[in-house]
Amino acid sequence: MKSYRKELWFNIQTRRSFVNITPEVEKCLRDSVVQEGLVLVNAMHISASVFINDDESGLHHDFEQFLERLVPHEPIGQYRHNDTGEDNADAHIKRQIMGREAVIAITGGKLDFGPWEQIFYGEFDGGRRKRVLVKIIGE
Amino acid sequence: MKSYRKELWFNIQTRRSFVNITPEVEKCLRDSVVQEGLVLVNAMHISASVFINDDESGLHHDFEQFLERLVPHEPIGQYRHNDTGEDNADAHIKRQIMGREAVIAITGGKLDFGPWEQIFYGEFDGGRRKRVLVKIIGE
Amino acid sequence: MKSYRKELWFNIQTRRSFVNITPEVEKCLRDSVVQEGLVLVNAMHISASVFINDDESGLHHDFEQFLERLVPHEPIGQYRHNDTGEDNADAHIKRQIMGREAVIAITGGKLDFGPWEQIFYGEFDGGRRKRVLVKIIGE
Repeated sequence: MKSYRKELWFNIQTRRSFVNITPEVEKCLRDSVVQEGLVLVNAMHISASVFINDDESGLHHDFEQFLERLVPHEPIGQYRHNDTGEDNADAHIKRQIMGREAVIAITGGKLDFGPWEQIFYGEFDGGRRKRVLVKIIGE
Repeated sequence: MKSYRKELWFNIQTRRSFVNITPEVEKCLRDSVVQEGLVLVNAMHISASVFINDDESGLHHDFEQFLERLVPHEPIGQYRHNDTGEDNADAHIKRQIMGREAVIAITGGKLDFGPWEQIFYGEFDGGRRKRVLVKIIGE
Repeated sequence: MKSYRKELWFNIQTRRSFVNITPEVEKCLRDSVVQEGLVLVNAMHISASVFINDDESGLHHDFEQFLERLVPHEPIGQYRHNDTGEDNADAHIKRQIMGREAVIAITGGKLDFGPWEQIFYGEFDGGRRKRVLVKIIGE
């Protein structure tokens, strides 16, 4: 069994953003030379997500509106987590809705994807350096 | 390490539906002859889900009501994704809530499940042929 | 390829609770002696979750408030699942939002975690014995 590990680093300047990381994960897969197996891609921070959906800017706007309507950032004082001096309770909850990780099949050395599947990093508390882990196992 | 891959095809005529696919995944597992490992089951389309819950029609009604209340299909014009000519922005968001994939342990050649766990395909934008991927790795 | 399996048992007396199970999963990993691979940690019951977030009591209060506002336990009669004699339809829906499982990379014999990642069992229908599955594969 082969294994491969890489960290992808981000420094998103806005509070929230969605970044297509499919090319970076594909590069990891090529470097791993794994032909059959699984890729785990996960946020290493608990106020960020990795998820698979469509690379369409209108949809990303809809995600943003949906999440902010459901779990508004402000007023900050509505969340007990923010009593600790943080202001990112909403980001922790938004990340639960969007998910921490994606597990993707590897077949014939490629990400085994449907026609529109793309991998996104979802930032909900930007302004600092944060990481995504890519772990590949297989043969 | 063994690996196995199969696509399950669906053509749901209603917009939304939940289909129990546990027997099909169990058949894949038997065909793979893997005894110890992991099964990944994921929607290959970004307006559909794979998830694990109870096979009870009242609960499926409750899921439907919950999702439609939270992310209504209509009016279509409330979503920027639908400015592209699509009408399925709600389906992309519903799939995020219900999840893309399930990862299931294989122990002794069986799905290692609790007493009520069943695997479902969740369709949120039916009316055409769509696929689920079953990928098995192990020994 | 090595594989390892263990069930963790819980008997939460309140209806809802979040329990940090990171030490138990770390013990499983040591017992497995796997150095490179993946850990799957999943609720074996469909009214409970396994998820990764922050071990901060204010945040757990915020999760509880968010989930109960979105999917209130009462009135019980608002859910068709509860027509079966159950009163836990809300727990099945809450578990969908928080997720069934976490998949975690193993690197150098350790859980490959960011600085604040902790694994939680989320109980949404307590008062009886329930289980979490830990399955490890790798080398």
